[in-house]
Amino acid sequence: MRGAVIYGAGDVRCEERPDPAIIEPTDAIIRTVATCICGSDLWRYRGIDPVPHPTPFGHEYCGIVEQVGGAVTSVTPGQFVVGGFLASDGTCPNCRYGVQSACVQACGYDGCQAEMIRIPLADGTLVATPEQPPENLFPSLLALSDVMATGWHAAVSAAVRPGMTVAVVGDGAVGLCGVLAASTLGAARVIAMSRHASRQQLARAFGATDIVDERGDAGIARIREMTEGVGADAVLECVGTGEAQLQALRATRPGGMVGWVGVPHDVEFSMQDSFWRNVGVRGGPAPVRHYLPDLMERVWNRQIDPGQVFDLTLPLAQVAEGYRAMDERRAIKVLLRP
Amino acid sequence: MRGAVIYGAGDVRCEERPDPAIIEPTDAIIRTVATCICGSDLWRYRGIDPVPHPTPFGHEYCGIVEQVGGAVTSVTPGQFVVGGFLASDGTCPNCRYGVQSACVQACGYDGCQAEMIRIPLADGTLVATPEQPPENLFPSLLALSDVMATGWHAAVSAAVRPGMTVAVVGDGAVGLCGVLAASTLGAARVIAMSRHASRQQLARAFGATDIVDERGDAGIARIREMTEGVGADAVLECVGTGEAQLQALRATRPGGMVGWVGVPHDVEFSMQDSFWRNVGVRGGPAPVRHYLPDLMERVWNRQIDPGQVFDLTLPLAQVAEGYRAMDERRAIKVLLRP
Repeated sequence: MRGAVIYGAGDVRCEERPDPAIIEPTDAIIRTVATCICGSDLWRYRGIDPVPHPTPFGHEYCGIVEQVGGAVTSVTPGQFVVGGFLASDGTCPNCRYGVQSACVQACGYDGCQAEMIRIPLADGTLVATPEQPPENLFPSLLALSDVMATGWHAAVSAAVRPGMTVAVVGDGAVGLCGVLAASTLGAARVIAMSRHASRQQLARAFGATDIVDERGDAGIARIREMTEGVGADAVLECVGTGEAQLQALRATRPGGMVGWVGVPHDVEFSMQDSFWRNVGVRGGPAPVRHYLPDLMERVWNRQIDPGQVFDLTLPLAQVAEGYRAMDERRAIKVLLRP
Repeated sequence: MRGAVIYGAGDVRCEERPDPAIIEPTDAIIRTVATCICGSDLWRYRGIDPVPHPTPFGHEYCGIVEQVGGAVTSVTPGQFVVGGFLASDGTCPNCRYGVQSACVQACGYDGCQAEMIRIPLADGTLVATPEQPPENLFPSLLALSDVMATGWHAAVSAAVRPGMTVAVVGDGAVGLCGVLAASTLGAARVIAMSRHASRQQLARAFGATDIVDERGDAGIARIREMTEGVGADAVLECVGTGEAQLQALRATRPGGMVGWVGVPHDVEFSMQDSFWRNVGVRGGPAPVRHYLPDLMERVWNRQIDPGQVFDLTLPLAQVAEGYRAMDERRAIKVLLRP
């Protein structure tokens, strides 16, 4: 089969790789229908995170079950499935609590930008659609594998409730999905912080009621102006830098919450100011599997259409161009078709 | 009138001070029925926080309204009242949101360890009892002024719900009130971390189901042992040191919350580990006024008896001995009667 491999900074290739095979009886093999490039992949693509040796790439996927191990009971060959970016057993105390991202057997997998994928712990990881989806649902189903579930996790972690004012820091695909999540959860006002016209437009389509294009102190001042001087009830931090995190904390009203999903990279920030202002922080890697059944139903019923974050679709063979487009911010998020 | 004044480290005196008078029309003058010494007073008593000049001391009180300014409408002379450790106007966006500790006019007041006290912003600060309370309710009503409301805030901030397992870091008066709060809010299991027999005993009386007397890594290991290896659903941090905060974060299960009320003193800690484990942090100075009506009703109906934290009662004239007893940990908390 063919699949993407990263060789080093700026060097991703689509090449022949061995077909995956069942190793454990809890495995499933998926024939990929759609996969995509994640903002977090860019850390290695940009040389910030190391690539010690050529590595199969990608962790988002949806597809058709090709084969299952002898212990798999919840999915069968032929079903269309989505899974999150971490495998989980579904039975440990953390899975039972709904935090599958902290499964005691959790394991990530690179290599989903490929024609076929081996998924460990299939019963605790995959969710099948009610029936074969129409092709126009593929992008939104694929978005559940990471980006939409992560935006949703930001909103849930920030305890977004109907009627709230919610600000979103970060206009990448996760931030835009955070806008959609806040809006879907009933926020009365969703403030997207963005200075890019195409992203502002998608934010509006996802339910943003206001756009703030100022950054830093000016951005915080603008949000306070819009909120009786106090800040937003909830703020979603979808970047992962210290600057973004401080911006989120300071844009939150006393007693409010920051939902934190931007993967932190050597970020230290002080919680002292947040203590005195009673601003809380909650978040982390999204427990995708926890949200999948609910989000899949919302996609299936066409209540949400998170697939709009994919503004460039390429054949898998052109994965290198996909990375370039993401890196240069020419694309918000790139969908790859094997 | 007579009142306590701190002159410097280890030097608190009861001396003659001028009677307070109405300054603003929103003021009330209270004749103190009971006041007390706070763990946070010890920062100055121990010389850790500076005392630049002799300062009236104390911020917890209950008493009888003696006089009100012309703009005060919610309390009248003769009523028995309790107020929190910060005055609040009750009308600003933060007060309306229930975070009176962040009132835009919030002001603290020293000098409550005295026969009379001037309370600013009386309408937004004081709550009257339904009728004159019996003397045996004085300690519990006084406890609502800070320590019980703060323990309650820890539990609310940690999102304690019925059936949860809750651990409490800190066996001071606030930590013990945190035990009472968690138990009252329906926690199935309340683990008090304490190695002092008298405090363990009170923790049991307040609803602790388990005592852990190990500290540091051993304490965390013990809590994980008791919780299927994952940690408590919610942890109340009632100390304020970096060590206590890290202990709280690490004793919390993935997806759980730390309720943070220990006043931080130059504490920096990393939130990175908490991100990866999806452990949230929320808390700060308790919005006492927000909780007062509910907590007063619970005290009035004798559902809770937080006044048990006062294990030493002294006349105000012996305030110096009160501070010594608290400093030497001979007393959990000292009640002073003018």
